[in-house]
Amino acid sequence: MLSLTEANEQIWKRFQHLPVGCEEVDVLAGLDRIVAADIASPVDVPGFSRSMCDGYAVLASDTQAADEGYPVLLSCLGEVPPGANAAMEVKGGQCVYVSTGSMMPPGADAMVMVEQTQPDAEDFIRFSRPVISGERIIRRGDDLKSGQLILKRGERLHPRHIGSLVAAGIYRVKVFARPRFAIISTGDELVDGGQKLTPGQIRDSNSYALQAFITKAGGEVVRRVLVKDDRELYRQELANAVNCADIVLITGGCSVGTRDFTAGVINGLPGEGVFIQGVNIRPGRPLIVGEGMGKPIFGLPGHPIAPVILFKAIVEKLWRRLIDYREEADRVTAVVDFDLCPAFFTHLLVQLEKRDRFIYARLASPGNPAQTSAVSRADGYIWIKDLETGLRRGQTAEVFLI
Amino acid sequence: MLSLTEANEQIWKRFQHLPVGCEEVDVLAGLDRIVAADIASPVDVPGFSRSMCDGYAVLASDTQAADEGYPVLLSCLGEVPPGANAAMEVKGGQCVYVSTGSMMPPGADAMVMVEQTQPDAEDFIRFSRPVISGERIIRRGDDLKSGQLILKRGERLHPRHIGSLVAAGIYRVKVFARPRFAIISTGDELVDGGQKLTPGQIRDSNSYALQAFITKAGGEVVRRVLVKDDRELYRQELANAVNCADIVLITGGCSVGTRDFTAGVINGLPGEGVFIQGVNIRPGRPLIVGEGMGKPIFGLPGHPIAPVILFKAIVEKLWRRLIDYREEADRVTAVVDFDLCPAFFTHLLVQLEKRDRFIYARLASPGNPAQTSAVSRADGYIWIKDLETGLRRGQTAEVFLI
Repeated sequence: MLSLTEANEQIWKRFQHLPVGCEEVDVLAGLDRIVAADIASPVDVPGFSRSMCDGYAVLASDTQAADEGYPVLLSCLGEVPPGANAAMEVKGGQCVYVSTGSMMPPGADAMVMVEQTQPDAEDFIRFSRPVISGERIIRRGDDLKSGQLILKRGERLHPRHIGSLVAAGIYRVKVFARPRFAIISTGDELVDGGQKLTPGQIRDSNSYALQAFITKAGGEVVRRVLVKDDRELYRQELANAVNCADIVLITGGCSVGTRDFTAGVINGLPGEGVFIQGVNIRPGRPLIVGEGMGKPIFGLPGHPIAPVILFKAIVEKLWRRLIDYREEADRVTAVVDFDLCPAFFTHLLVQLEKRDRFIYARLASPGNPAQTSAVSRADGYIWIKDLETGLRRGQTAEVFLI
Repeated sequence: MLSLTEANEQIWKRFQHLPVGCEEVDVLAGLDRIVAADIASPVDVPGFSRSMCDGYAVLASDTQAADEGYPVLLSCLGEVPPGANAAMEVKGGQCVYVSTGSMMPPGADAMVMVEQTQPDAEDFIRFSRPVISGERIIRRGDDLKSGQLILKRGERLHPRHIGSLVAAGIYRVKVFARPRFAIISTGDELVDGGQKLTPGQIRDSNSYALQAFITKAGGEVVRRVLVKDDRELYRQELANAVNCADIVLITGGCSVGTRDFTAGVINGLPGEGVFIQGVNIRPGRPLIVGEGMGKPIFGLPGHPIAPVILFKAIVEKLWRRLIDYREEADRVTAVVDFDLCPAFFTHLLVQLEKRDRFIYARLASPGNPAQTSAVSRADGYIWIKDLETGLRRGQTAEVFLI
């Protein structure tokens, strides 16, 4: 049976040329979207040297001899108001009043804070301490140089980037289109929406959970339907799904009977059909992956933990690879707070807890594994790849955040 | 001058009774919102015992003597299809076929996987290994017990919670209303939107950055305006802002002149007016906090790092305290990768880097501090509270993620 890595490689080989769209959006609407092309500043920011204080623009060399006992007097030529072009040149023996953020007049190379000066007779200003060249000035391009990268393709647009983008005059950004998902739930025991349950029925929670994880991953669910175990209805719904979505997820159908059903229906579509049937991981072993009309179709088992793990470890991974996503922050190294030596390659849901400056991982579902409540408590999962060693209390492990 | 902690306490005292609204939304629309009341499951989930495999429901005691050489034969009464009420009772010597997820028939207390059985003559099934009571069954309430908490007031609704909520039949959730913000930018040198810059002008990037951080924090910006340094216009805009928003942020006006201007205009509103003018932190020292018509008004200095830090360390903090927000994941312990002993209480922007299983923090702006690009590179900030020691390479520090 395929390992997870082998399955991901087969899926990648098959779908690495899946078309990925782009769109241009307003910079604030682009928050949390994935940038589709490198973004560099088209200009120097600031575009001119600016004062960092309210005070006097001077030639630093004029102040070198200044001290409390022997102040230097400079003739004030006037002022540069905020937003104005500083036209008058400052020469030796002269100064100009400049407020915070205003343009430095040509010639001047330092600012003296107004609090450190005294007015003197007839437009002369008294300076009692020396300043050095560049003092309290932001020079042209100190923030961003023309051509300097602000965001790379595949990075997520975060609030922290907005200031630089706008300062550089970038109000629109090119981002990857949201991948469109269709979700089909199958199972005669499932009930959707607010309907009453009769004995034997349960609520279809997997498709809601998947929609939530898809949304968080930046995708969009364009269709979500619940299909009873009727092969013809199922076939029609799958055809609808591949027509309107980029990626199709089928949940439920984890039993032997329904599994065959799903594979058969996928194989009925034009395309290559099912090429993965079963992967050596728990939960999620009965995974089915196929291609229909060029679209990836994932058959996820119905047990509540499997769809979440498989979405993170396989589906989201495919998407992120397609858009060169630079993942970094979605892993945490934690100290394992339990002993476990499972018989299978396992994705283990864990809760994280901060104690004594370490992050500890403990089991999210010490008892029954087939629970929505285990997912609800989990911060992430550990992938147990080494069945010899398993996990021992006190060792560290990578936790993939969900 | 007030410390940050003292400022936060004064702000809390003044605004702890600020009204905070709630609203009920669909569970998927509630993603990332803050839950306004504890949410408990109103029912047991599942509501009945379910099979975890395709196979036969039996009395475990019937199988105790079974082995390969001496199989046990049980008479099969029929099957429980998915979603059906399991009416027929299983007694000693009997079994019932049950598919995955279907209801366990009364009497039976264990499942045997179909792969581990053989059909025998005349509706008899052969069992060759013993099972224990409870095997491959999810019992009523194993996932969620009636009354069991799924989310606490003040928790953020995460995709991981959706499965449990829906499984429990909860399709609507009560969340805190988004706080409404108004942002006023001031400064004659500022230009908004895609306009061309003339020499001396710069783009108003602070209000965009603030809007992005507000959005990420779950707030909503209902008004964002740029006001030239005209006292009457400013007064009118502030009146508009307190009328339509819960919280008002003013950015710019960091110079001595404009600062007085801001305080004066806030004091012109009905209400207590300015009660904090200056806080002992860098950047952000010229912070102004006031109350007008019952609303908090924050005057944030114009330098690009200060508004972001002050928003996180003061404004967002007030809001989170008002809604009992349970913050946990927004801090990281990192190893400091530089030496710094500043003269002031400083919020220092840092970049995080993962190396050898540790997270290292290095300065986001080794040079000039007044840069949007420093914010753009930063993952978070360290609050230097101990001026004696400062920060030394190799020590650990808490990084507040932005």
